[in-house]
Amino acid sequence: APKTQVEYDYDGPSMKTSVPGPRSQVLNAAHVYSQNVGAINFFCNYDESRGNYLVDVDGNRMLDIYTQISSIPIGYNHPALIKLMSDPSSLSTLVNRPALGILPPENFPDKLTESLLSVAPSGMSRVQTMACGSCSNENAYKAMFILYRVSEYYYCCCHRPFYQGVPGCPDLSILSFMGAFHGRTMGCLATTHSKAIHKLDVPSFDWPIAPFPKLQYPLEEFTRENAQEEARCLEEVEDLIVKWRQKGKPVAGIVIEPIQAEGGDNHASPDFFRNLRNIARKHGCAFHVDEVQTGGGNTGKLWAHEHWGMDDPADIVSFSKKLLTGGYYHRDELQADKPYRIFNTWMGDPSKNLLLAEVLNVIRRENLLEEVTRSGKALLNGLYDLQAQFPGLLSRARGQGTFCAIDICDDATRSSILLKARDKGVLLGGCGDRSIRFRPSLVFKEYHVHIFLNIFSEVLAQHK
Amino acid sequence: APKTQVEYDYDGPSMKTSVPGPRSQVLNAAHVYSQNVGAINFFCNYDESRGNYLVDVDGNRMLDIYTQISSIPIGYNHPALIKLMSDPSSLSTLVNRPALGILPPENFPDKLTESLLSVAPSGMSRVQTMACGSCSNENAYKAMFILYRVSEYYYCCCHRPFYQGVPGCPDLSILSFMGAFHGRTMGCLATTHSKAIHKLDVPSFDWPIAPFPKLQYPLEEFTRENAQEEARCLEEVEDLIVKWRQKGKPVAGIVIEPIQAEGGDNHASPDFFRNLRNIARKHGCAFHVDEVQTGGGNTGKLWAHEHWGMDDPADIVSFSKKLLTGGYYHRDELQADKPYRIFNTWMGDPSKNLLLAEVLNVIRRENLLEEVTRSGKALLNGLYDLQAQFPGLLSRARGQGTFCAIDICDDATRSSILLKARDKGVLLGGCGDRSIRFRPSLVFKEYHVHIFLNIFSEVLAQHK
Repeated sequence: APKTQVEYDYDGPSMKTSVPGPRSQVLNAAHVYSQNVGAINFFCNYDESRGNYLVDVDGNRMLDIYTQISSIPIGYNHPALIKLMSDPSSLSTLVNRPALGILPPENFPDKLTESLLSVAPSGMSRVQTMACGSCSNENAYKAMFILYRVSEYYYCCCHRPFYQGVPGCPDLSILSFMGAFHGRTMGCLATTHSKAIHKLDVPSFDWPIAPFPKLQYPLEEFTRENAQEEARCLEEVEDLIVKWRQKGKPVAGIVIEPIQAEGGDNHASPDFFRNLRNIARKHGCAFHVDEVQTGGGNTGKLWAHEHWGMDDPADIVSFSKKLLTGGYYHRDELQADKPYRIFNTWMGDPSKNLLLAEVLNVIRRENLLEEVTRSGKALLNGLYDLQAQFPGLLSRARGQGTFCAIDICDDATRSSILLKARDKGVLLGGCGDRSIRFRPSLVFKEYHVHIFLNIFSEVLAQHK
Repeated sequence: APKTQVEYDYDGPSMKTSVPGPRSQVLNAAHVYSQNVGAINFFCNYDESRGNYLVDVDGNRMLDIYTQISSIPIGYNHPALIKLMSDPSSLSTLVNRPALGILPPENFPDKLTESLLSVAPSGMSRVQTMACGSCSNENAYKAMFILYRVSEYYYCCCHRPFYQGVPGCPDLSILSFMGAFHGRTMGCLATTHSKAIHKLDVPSFDWPIAPFPKLQYPLEEFTRENAQEEARCLEEVEDLIVKWRQKGKPVAGIVIEPIQAEGGDNHASPDFFRNLRNIARKHGCAFHVDEVQTGGGNTGKLWAHEHWGMDDPADIVSFSKKLLTGGYYHRDELQADKPYRIFNTWMGDPSKNLLLAEVLNVIRRENLLEEVTRSGKALLNGLYDLQAQFPGLLSRARGQGTFCAIDICDDATRSSILLKARDKGVLLGGCGDRSIRFRPSLVFKEYHVHIFLNIFSEVLAQHK
């Protein structure tokens, strides 16, 4: 039967071997001669994967709550996407990748309008596509540096633009936060601090790093303590901005994740972000919200920063992963004054915009953000229950929508739990020192939550 | 009639308006609200484009000798690629983009073997895919930094690995060349020196920049002078390596293009590269050949460095553009010791490997490298003739395969020639201060050369 007629989701996990199974191991053994296989979990059969279920090459079918590091928006082989890619009108987009910055296809403005522009964050009507999250952040940083220098023209004199410095590569900086992850290319890496191994041996910039609030969970039970902690961090941010200006390396931009993801699912309150945005404005720093992992609907809103309830939440919002194309939205001022300053050969890939337009249609048609909010509640409540049930094992259950996490007592126990859960048909990922992060796709329904909770509590019982 | 049955190439340019035509202008006027349109040439109808001909939205059909900044390997809508993308077995690769580093698809090792590994440079059996050229170079630099630090372990003591430094982000450097272009993200940008505007206002690293030989053309007429110039540059390279070591910023790697492309199609002799490779080895620097623009067949060989005739031409070779996926080949030593040091969510895109495997089949089946050599000779001879005919206007015709260039007397005249040629149906690009670069796809045959030469000589006659 043709693929599109197969049932869109399976009814549960089905395990035939432990994972990685024998076929995965054979493939890995061959692959080791050409690739670094150290991070490979197992090999997949994407043809047979459906909805929330990832099927591996040994025929194991797992409930996928990690979704390719949070990058599969509406599950595997969604019929709407299969249909789109089977349509002959998609063919020329697939075989003729243009240099988007110079020779865009006729339908590119329309596809942008249907896809990225239809979900543009408040205050932003401009978007720049890029190939991946790192490139998006790199170019966002460049845009902030360029803007900062433009603004320097006007600091000298009110009426005539006049520039004090010399043209060149100035010592500007980006302020980032401890525990942040913004990518692994060299500009991004200078702002990434989630794990030492990411940065080890790679030269970096002398840029300021502020503390990210270490909050106590559940947030609503510790509002006073958490507000104090956030105030402490904001004060430090202002101090660093002043210090780096004095050092001759002024802060052109502040970059932050709405929820620190790789760094361990660290939350902060809407108040924190509102105050931070004001500090940025006060000191003439652009405010860059990195939604590469939080964007795309998992938090119950398309952008996690929408939970802050601001009309003017940011100057730049970068994205990738679930948005299928990398890129960043930006306010008008952040458009470089000249062409070719923000540029590369491909500048994205229109075939990804095609897919994204359809993904957004599915999200709207199937009310997936409401579904996420519903499943997210069930998931977080389930985690609270388990945490009460296994107090020595679990702590700090937290989340927004299905973008949830829980801490395990230590790293070794976490590894053991992740492997055991996988062998029982649930695929999860870690983050931070000892957290498990939940990153299902948007088609993860309440009944999937219950399938997960049943299996997870069995695994935990074995670790008690 | 279905697209795949339409004739694969057109018989010549056909112009209906000047370019950009009215429809392109309307689209541009709409696009300006969401995008920087300053670099847009015109909007394209990729459905109707075929082979060597790019069709725009006003129905103009141009002989394309720029091919999306040298990134279209076998022309537009090649039937073999249309067929591949129409095959239902390609669908799951198109709609389920995996996190390749952790959950590769079953056919990934085979597709790598059929595609990138089947054309691996001499001495290299390992390859790392990435999304674009900049990311490829960024990660190649990281691999060189990591290797350099590993080697430091062994410098201290012969028998026991022992490391003097402290773990962290050391002050290492990459040596690059004046006029080089290696990309626009912050690590790459520190090694890019083709145009000031690319780097303006963006912080950089204090890394050494060596002179690239300024040769006289035709190369065979100036062998003695050119050898002297190359020797001067090589001497400077060694001086810089020593200086930067003394500064405490040792050179971990040397990066170079086989032909500086963006920088103005600057050539150097095989001897120069052989000596440079030896200098790198002597000083313990990794040798990185950036084939992002030169790779893929335009020079008459799949890799331009094959013209050097070396068994061990490099430690790292990066690619993108015509290879459809970014990435880099590397020697075994350059594989990081641990997983997740060279990593990102997508690490490429298997759908591009699918396309590349078929592109390489077409190159072999249609003997396209031989064709390129033949058309390249016709093109270069034609340029020599034109240069003799228009001595005040043209100079320094040069090239390898169809990877050719010629200088125009000044930048303003170059712009005027490029626009007039376009209005007559020939699409070309500039590079350097006043060069025109020729970057046809590999299906550019001798008769396309003659179509081009006829139109180009008409345009030149108007500028005499």
